[in-house]
Amino acid sequence: MQRMKATISYDGSGFSGYQVQPDQRTVQSELESALRKMHKGTPVKVTGSGRTDAGVHAAGQVIHFDTPYSIKEENWIKALNTMLPDDIVILKVEQVPEDFHARFDVKKKEYRYRVLRTEKPNVFKRAFTYHYPYQLDVGAIEKAAAYILGEHDFSSFCSAKTEVNDKVRTIYEAEIIVEENELVFRFVGNGFLYNMVRILGGTFLEVGSGKRSADDLPAIIESKERSNAGKTAPAHGLYLWSVTY
Amino acid sequence: MQRMKATISYDGSGFSGYQVQPDQRTVQSELESALRKMHKGTPVKVTGSGRTDAGVHAAGQVIHFDTPYSIKEENWIKALNTMLPDDIVILKVEQVPEDFHARFDVKKKEYRYRVLRTEKPNVFKRAFTYHYPYQLDVGAIEKAAAYILGEHDFSSFCSAKTEVNDKVRTIYEAEIIVEENELVFRFVGNGFLYNMVRILGGTFLEVGSGKRSADDLPAIIESKERSNAGKTAPAHGLYLWSVTY
Repeated sequence: MQRMKATISYDGSGFSGYQVQPDQRTVQSELESALRKMHKGTPVKVTGSGRTDAGVHAAGQVIHFDTPYSIKEENWIKALNTMLPDDIVILKVEQVPEDFHARFDVKKKEYRYRVLRTEKPNVFKRAFTYHYPYQLDVGAIEKAAAYILGEHDFSSFCSAKTEVNDKVRTIYEAEIIVEENELVFRFVGNGFLYNMVRILGGTFLEVGSGKRSADDLPAIIESKERSNAGKTAPAHGLYLWSVTY
Repeated sequence: MQRMKATISYDGSGFSGYQVQPDQRTVQSELESALRKMHKGTPVKVTGSGRTDAGVHAAGQVIHFDTPYSIKEENWIKALNTMLPDDIVILKVEQVPEDFHARFDVKKKEYRYRVLRTEKPNVFKRAFTYHYPYQLDVGAIEKAAAYILGEHDFSSFCSAKTEVNDKVRTIYEAEIIVEENELVFRFVGNGFLYNMVRILGGTFLEVGSGKRSADDLPAIIESKERSNAGKTAPAHGLYLWSVTY
């Protein structure tokens, strides 16, 4: 058996999230179904770097799977893209050592949250950005972002639904990218809790629109209390951008 | 009665084109259904600047309709956008003279055709660009574009399905916009024949990929023979960009 690592992108709009769930269309189930076809009916288990929720997109999710086949990397890409529906695209396939693990070996993840600032909604971006047509103070958001850098217990930015106990994570980069009609919140960290980027995004929008002050961030973090942070921003603005090993 | 002009955008992906057809989801039928609700069940006829085919997008389609209501323009926009599905967005509503006509009064139309040049497909743009991952000679396409400027009989660039007799149209602008990962063919003219922009797009791609020469364009035009032009490029790369009166 050979272990293969694949970098994939997907439009989250049509999926009930990444992970297999009974009777739901998920990214993992589509991947496993394509691989099973390639393996003549033999089930192939796919392991992802982590889950993404319904509606959340991926520009560079990473998965691994084991196969008895020796196929050139370029041909894996072609074969899988032919088998897969067109809302999943395989970008890269590499053979990796047998002990590579897409989830356990993650060093860094990058997430981005795209906010569309135009006055009117944009039909072409409605599934790919969160439309927020209100005034935003970008400087205030940048100040808020600086407070989350470093190692913190992010309990305040974690959905109560989580089963994780250790809520300490390190954020290496928190950048606000200003584009023509968009504001993009970019986060790089050693890991992210359930809904963490969406709650950070929602909190940043409240800071930007003046509902709270950037200087409230340290107290929100210290309180370790979800109810002190902002709303969870909608899933369709969120992208798992890349995973580093 | 007052005549209202509205500028609208739509994602063509989910429509069987602009025009009403029995048992099909069309842009016109969604607009008329929203207006009928606003008018308490009274049918309101919508007239567009022209049709767009299934899958074709609009960034700035223009329509008109008559109404007995006196509503502020900003409130028309809000009311209609609330009634309409989210793949149609009303951008502007203006009261116009009673004799304004969205189709007969058109002075100029702009269409754009978006070609995605990345090696791999892009899941987020798959419904909004035509993915063409082959080498393209932009200079050759620019040369081809120059030949279509001015007044010509465009029979060679018109689907055989058309019922129009006069196939003479004037092209004022034909520009190739080079973006980071895209090539955009931009056309401004006094009118366009059925499938004209898609056939021009397909022909330009054949010129760009070396299958034909830019200098073949004059002979293709003169022949007035559809079979001498290139393939019809797919609908989902095409945008009715704006309409001028």
